[in-house]
Amino acid sequence: MSSWTAHPADHLLDAIARLGSPVCVGLDPVVEKLPSALGSSSPVAAISAFSLGIIRALKGIIPCVKLQSACYERYGAEGMRALAETMSAASECGIVTILDWKRGDIGISAEHYAYAAYQVYGADWTTVNPYLGADGIAPFVARGGAFALVRTSNPGSDALQSIRTASGATIAETVADLVAQTGRTVVGLQGYSALGAVVGATKAREAAALRLRMPQQLFLVPGFGAQGGTVDDVLPCFNQDGRGALVTASRSVIFPSQTSGSDWTSPVQRAAEAFAAEIRTGLSNAVLARPHTG
Amino acid sequence: MSSWTAHPADHLLDAIARLGSPVCVGLDPVVEKLPSALGSSSPVAAISAFSLGIIRALKGIIPCVKLQSACYERYGAEGMRALAETMSAASECGIVTILDWKRGDIGISAEHYAYAAYQVYGADWTTVNPYLGADGIAPFVARGGAFALVRTSNPGSDALQSIRTASGATIAETVADLVAQTGRTVVGLQGYSALGAVVGATKAREAAALRLRMPQQLFLVPGFGAQGGTVDDVLPCFNQDGRGALVTASRSVIFPSQTSGSDWTSPVQRAAEAFAAEIRTGLSNAVLARPHTG
Repeated sequence: MSSWTAHPADHLLDAIARLGSPVCVGLDPVVEKLPSALGSSSPVAAISAFSLGIIRALKGIIPCVKLQSACYERYGAEGMRALAETMSAASECGIVTILDWKRGDIGISAEHYAYAAYQVYGADWTTVNPYLGADGIAPFVARGGAFALVRTSNPGSDALQSIRTASGATIAETVADLVAQTGRTVVGLQGYSALGAVVGATKAREAAALRLRMPQQLFLVPGFGAQGGTVDDVLPCFNQDGRGALVTASRSVIFPSQTSGSDWTSPVQRAAEAFAAEIRTGLSNAVLARPHTG
Repeated sequence: MSSWTAHPADHLLDAIARLGSPVCVGLDPVVEKLPSALGSSSPVAAISAFSLGIIRALKGIIPCVKLQSACYERYGAEGMRALAETMSAASECGIVTILDWKRGDIGISAEHYAYAAYQVYGADWTTVNPYLGADGIAPFVARGGAFALVRTSNPGSDALQSIRTASGATIAETVADLVAQTGRTVVGLQGYSALGAVVGATKAREAAALRLRMPQQLFLVPGFGAQGGTVDDVLPCFNQDGRGALVTASRSVIFPSQTSGSDWTSPVQRAAEAFAAEIRTGLSNAVLARPHTG
């Protein structure tokens, strides 16, 4: 059924274990914020140089990067070339890649997107939108890993995701059940599915309930740091054993407030190390604090 | 608030009025189905040549084309170049363009996608996914037209879209209310919003209820012809005056069953003319058959 060489969940969990912290850095480059030291002949050239510099800076510190596709797609075909180069550089550095492009389509169109994500761009994981149902998701998990949007942290998300169905569950919880069900056939050796879930860091109160509904899903948890999520917010996204989630910070790492003139990558490295350490420490304290149940 | 030169709904309705039939041809090129007469040096070159041939064939017959982005995205940066060329050729032929890429993101990412759709690719309309709520949609309608997915016709769509909320409405109807509300601030001179709705042709029983909930929305109705939708199926998508919907056929027009050797575009033209006539006739019969109410 699948065309993986290694199961995407096992591959990601191995990378996390190797570097000791379940963290991901979001690469959302916008021209206005790039370090002046970069210089550039064009916006795309600047974004490309910045992306490659970030990847090199994260090597050996951060197990996984998430590329915000929109930042590259904004520049049309040229931008897609920069995206492909960045993905390829990350893989060469042993960093697991998530192509955050939130596609959702059906039939052959979904197959085309899956082919593009995993074969053309070489992504390990991608993000998908669940509104079209399981037939919009299945073509992705047949080829690689996919995080389905379940609960997003933007202000407008409540208008739909928080509405209760006749059964009493919210729409986000209904989607969680769909994701748990759809992901059941693609579980890896370590017990996690190739179908994960996006659960925003600022929705801590809901995360515990979603965790119960989706025991086999890896949670991709964006919104840490600059977007307001704290360590306490993200803890409910993890399973009891301290695994099962991947915490993502973007701006606080790639645009650190302290810069050092021409050496713009050292502050990025320090911010990445601090981020990885903060999650590692918070998580081990929480696991130690839990009562023994076995 | 908006950066339109002409309101996208007025622009589309004018094009429909000029050619006399509310129809759209879906351009979903796949290499395996291309006319052998085309020849080609590469899959992308073949898809590009086919797309340009279709656009020229539809000129003066069909007011609007819908490009399935996945068919081009499958080929990475090169495919995006073919997409851009096809969009540009359609605009030069006076054909309104819909970029069917179903994006859904928030904040600056949604703005990037909107910039790409309308500025980089020159689309008049695009398709968007509503799962993230109004803040995933607003950046699009500030720049151009957008059809939000409300009710799709794929088999898996019921698993989410047909579920009833505590208020008794289905999730699709709940999304319809969100779309009607969000679209209210961007209504054009002819009474239709820059925010339209995708409603599958095979969901006729539900279309009438959705029409009532979204009086100002143009409906994009895919699934006519090869995908099973009939004239009777699509009539409930229109308002009483015979306006308000755009019926889309793809395979039955771009891959007509009768081919004529090296002249592959004449059969496409005949299929396009037959499709436009079928909808025009069905619609005028239905309008004539309605009781006078004024």
